[in-house]
Amino acid sequence: MATKDVIVLADLLGTNKKIASDIRTELERRGILAVNLLSSPGAGKTSLLEQIAVRLRDTAKMAVIEGDIETERDAERIRARGVPAWQITTGGACHLEAKMIARVLPQVPPESEFLFIENVGNLVCPASYELGERLRFVLLSTPEGDDKPKKYPKAFTTSDVLVLTKVDLLPYLPFDLEKVKAEALELNPRLQIFVTSAVTGQGLDELIAFLWRARRDLTARHA
Amino acid sequence: MATKDVIVLADLLGTNKKIASDIRTELERRGILAVNLLSSPGAGKTSLLEQIAVRLRDTAKMAVIEGDIETERDAERIRARGVPAWQITTGGACHLEAKMIARVLPQVPPESEFLFIENVGNLVCPASYELGERLRFVLLSTPEGDDKPKKYPKAFTTSDVLVLTKVDLLPYLPFDLEKVKAEALELNPRLQIFVTSAVTGQGLDELIAFLWRARRDLTARHA
Repeated sequence: MATKDVIVLADLLGTNKKIASDIRTELERRGILAVNLLSSPGAGKTSLLEQIAVRLRDTAKMAVIEGDIETERDAERIRARGVPAWQITTGGACHLEAKMIARVLPQVPPESEFLFIENVGNLVCPASYELGERLRFVLLSTPEGDDKPKKYPKAFTTSDVLVLTKVDLLPYLPFDLEKVKAEALELNPRLQIFVTSAVTGQGLDELIAFLWRARRDLTARHA
Repeated sequence: MATKDVIVLADLLGTNKKIASDIRTELERRGILAVNLLSSPGAGKTSLLEQIAVRLRDTAKMAVIEGDIETERDAERIRARGVPAWQITTGGACHLEAKMIARVLPQVPPESEFLFIENVGNLVCPASYELGERLRFVLLSTPEGDDKPKKYPKAFTTSDVLVLTKVDLLPYLPFDLEKVKAEALELNPRLQIFVTSAVTGQGLDELIAFLWRARRDLTARHA
């Protein structure tokens, strides 16, 4: 990259960080736990959110912001579970940016306890853009292969939680669960790891319990 | 995006297009059929190339350029099949650019008949950068889901060939093969579609036959 391009990129990232910081402050003041979900296309972000919606809807207020290049499909899937959802279509851009979240935020019900932001399906670019989240989740599905953390390190080094998805397919795949956990923890020792399947429900109760603990920590800090 | 950023991006794309055009001219003059492979991480690009290597190595000279953010793993897998391979690690960049290919090109044996370029695993950014290829392949693996063409249209509208991979997993997945074919063809009616599995070998002979026909067309045109 030429120096000029590097400066433009640094400008963009700096501006994004500032907006993200304002969003984070506002959300934490309101007691809303915001989670930014990153993964490759088709790793199961929307399916995971559908399962979280089913498990939270009677006990909590949640909202979802969906990011996609095109189509309203993911927001429609979430709304079908009775959860308010807003679709951001980036029209080509490979990631969400904080200013896109800032535009939707006034519509998020102030009494929400959880706000999930599903990023564009991309294991590279979204890792460079904070959106004001308190927690970043990276999802890795078993069919993608157990070599992904070292090949796409930034998504793993910048995340708080690794959700391994589609583990119901393990009998049919060459995927070494222990190897991928070890490699991910080598990159980022503070990663919390959940082993899940949206089909069988494996690991989802543990994930829900984790989310409630994280929200309690957030509100205790801002009480 | 601010106007300044749009201009910088247009500059980058224009420069890339010029370099790609020079590469294309040079490769076609030499009779080398170049294929640029795009897909999400873990859709099976390297596995497909391993299977092509096994099927071509006794009858053709092929070479592979591997693009990744980090690690030499993919080039090592290809070399293990007896095929010359060069690894480009982008160190964070989400796609290959033509200038990266231009740097490696002098090392590609001039008598090669096929050059495969495996792009960074990303269904978004690589679609905007020509690398001097004659054919662009987009791979979509069945676990990613049948909604991907409309959600990530550019990879499908700019490709010549759609390779559906991992169809051996179809019995375990909610994936509608006919729906995805129809949606992909709606976006790009000239797409050639191959239904494949690197595990069972399904569809690979047809793909090899297609590659030979494409190379024959190339050399006939430049004879």
